[in-house]
Amino acid sequence: MNFIQAPELQTTHWFNTTAPLTLESLRGRVVVIEAFQMLCPGCVSHGLPQAQRVLETFDSDDVCVLGLHTVFEHHAAQGTVEALEAFLHEYRFTFPVAIDAPTGKGGPSKTMTAYGMRGTPSLLLLDRNGRVRQHYFGREQDIKIGAEIAALVHEGQTSDSHTAQTDDNQCDDGGCRI
Amino acid sequence: MNFIQAPELQTTHWFNTTAPLTLESLRGRVVVIEAFQMLCPGCVSHGLPQAQRVLETFDSDDVCVLGLHTVFEHHAAQGTVEALEAFLHEYRFTFPVAIDAPTGKGGPSKTMTAYGMRGTPSLLLLDRNGRVRQHYFGREQDIKIGAEIAALVHEGQTSDSHTAQTDDNQCDDGGCRI
Amino acid sequence: MNFIQAPELQTTHWFNTTAPLTLESLRGRVVVIEAFQMLCPGCVSHGLPQAQRVLETFDSDDVCVLGLHTVFEHHAAQGTVEALEAFLHEYRFTFPVAIDAPTGKGGPSKTMTAYGMRGTPSLLLLDRNGRVRQHYFGREQDIKIGAEIAALVHEGQTSDSHTAQTDDNQCDDGGCRI
Amino acid sequence: MNFIQAPELQTTHWFNTTAPLTLESLRGRVVVIEAFQMLCPGCVSHGLPQAQRVLETFDSDDVCVLGLHTVFEHHAAQGTVEALEAFLHEYRFTFPVAIDAPTGKGGPSKTMTAYGMRGTPSLLLLDRNGRVRQHYFGREQDIKIGAEIAALVHEGQTSDSHTAQTDDNQCDDGGCRI
Repeated sequence: MNFIQAPELQTTHWFNTTAPLTLESLRGRVVVIEAFQMLCPGCVSHGLPQAQRVLETFDSDDVCVLGLHTVFEHHAAQGTVEALEAFLHEYRFTFPVAIDAPTGKGGPSKTMTAYGMRGTPSLLLLDRNGRVRQHYFGREQDIKIGAEIAALVHEGQTSDSHTAQTDDNQCDDGGCRI
Repeated sequence: MNFIQAPELQTTHWFNTTAPLTLESLRGRVVVIEAFQMLCPGCVSHGLPQAQRVLETFDSDDVCVLGLHTVFEHHAAQGTVEALEAFLHEYRFTFPVAIDAPTGKGGPSKTMTAYGMRGTPSLLLLDRNGRVRQHYFGREQDIKIGAEIAALVHEGQTSDSHTAQTDDNQCDDGGCRI
Repeated sequence: MNFIQAPELQTTHWFNTTAPLTLESLRGRVVVIEAFQMLCPGCVSHGLPQAQRVLETFDSDDVCVLGLHTVFEHHAAQGTVEALEAFLHEYRFTFPVAIDAPTGKGGPSKTMTAYGMRGTPSLLLLDRNGRVRQHYFGREQDIKIGAEIAALVHEGQTSDSHTAQTDDNQCDDGGCRI
Repeated sequence: MNFIQAPELQTTHWFNTTAPLTLESLRGRVVVIEAFQMLCPGCVSHGLPQAQRVLETFDSDDVCVLGLHTVFEHHAAQGTVEALEAFLHEYRFTFPVAIDAPTGKGGPSKTMTAYGMRGTPSLLLLDRNGRVRQHYFGREQDIKIGAEIAALVHEGQTSDSHTAQTDDNQCDDGGCRI
């Protein structure tokens, strides 16, 4: 089976990390991306707490949890670095979080568009080879997410991993096709 | 028994209402004030939804529900009108909400200080005569709050109501003393 | 307005009380009756915990909370005194509970039929004069139930209370009419 | 690493299955055993619904979910077949459930004793070779349980599986020792 190689993140600011992260640098680990907006009720009540539980359940050598602030509405209200920093602090979300790069023309932010996300919360599971294996929009059960991440952890990194990465040159903002 | 006359609200902006409200203009009705910050987890998960349930349970001729955005930390993050408007819209809180006037020197906002609130969420129940009858900090059970508001509704407006109001001249921003 | 006088309870066993109770002996207090079956999921997760919260919220001089085990299915499974006693103990429900008298012919038990209950959980609110003021089937919000009980508490006992009781002789299993 | 071979179930009655099950017959699949009592609040609110979610999440070719009614108190109240059948029906638990064999002398039932369970709910995860890999008492998070079951699913059946079984002769009712 062929899977889509995950487009690289396009970000403007990071929280809860000393340096910006790239998907390429995380190759070899399963990556869980929680795309959210701080004023999205379903993200606050469900998506982000679930991401925190993922963080607390898996070994960080195997699984990396990332938040991605993907604004597609209320840009003026949700956009500031100070607001997001206070939000993460008050809710005690401790995984690295990036602000998805805005297009500057309103509408969905860049990484959100590259992945074809339908809204927030969206949850993406990337395998150790950096390929998108699951892409959810809305609420998913913990038991299912836990099982799927564990399956990716135990799958290991395939031998064609490096090839998959070097074939990556047909990727653009619209996504990557094999 | 003597109760403290509720200090008037000191606000800078209102949402979900065509005109600013004053406690004086609401005399004759029970007033429920939910003091909150939009980045306070307990306010979002408990206090504000409870206020919305109060709104939907009682007759608006008897009970007026007000939200009061009482910032005492993360002023830059929580302060903007656009952010609060988007927040109220996304969470579908439909009762009138005011921004409590900041002191301009940081720290708790003016009405918050006048009432001696300890933090957010705080819930105040004012009787039909505008007196503070309950003042809670933190989480309170719905069944108890429902019962206490109903008790105030059925109490009616006492005959000494007007006197109580005109005796109000020893009130200042620091609160009212008997 | 006229309200239906509550038919007297027809019971076979009581728990959490030293002596059987009658509605007549509770006249003067608001009575809250939670009709349930121990194998009814909605009763266990919602109705009975709500009744316990009512017990813990109101003054016992004003409000009496009663459980009524109204079996209308799985008679053999739900019927035993030992099972119900263990159930009440394990779930820590501390209000008095009665077993509604079975008809001996299967189907809904006697008090359940007398009140025309549609199933479990059913919640009945009786005023201080022993009249049925609210009759709910299924799930109701705490804030609303708290408000309605408080309203009955503050209503007081009407002056025609004693008359209402002595006129009570046209009551039968089908209900009472004033 | 050595793991304890799971003692065979000792049961008196089965529900939700056309024939009694044995752990031996399930070798090759991961087995999830939810030990419960029908009057145990934590089992009803948490343990059994979690077992149902496991059932609905994993492929039945990989994972078998079993309920085990392990009575250690209120024997008379919890013991009847009719009561347990009605309970499973009303709560819509659809996985196979067995009644753990009572000792006839009160106290914990036989399988419960063999596994050294501390109470209910207890959750046991057995690998495809029939070895106890996890043994929990009380509440565990879905995300963790989902991950652990998935890990066992992906582990596969080891080549020494048959040997492990035939070495099983030092097991008795008191459990198996390495």
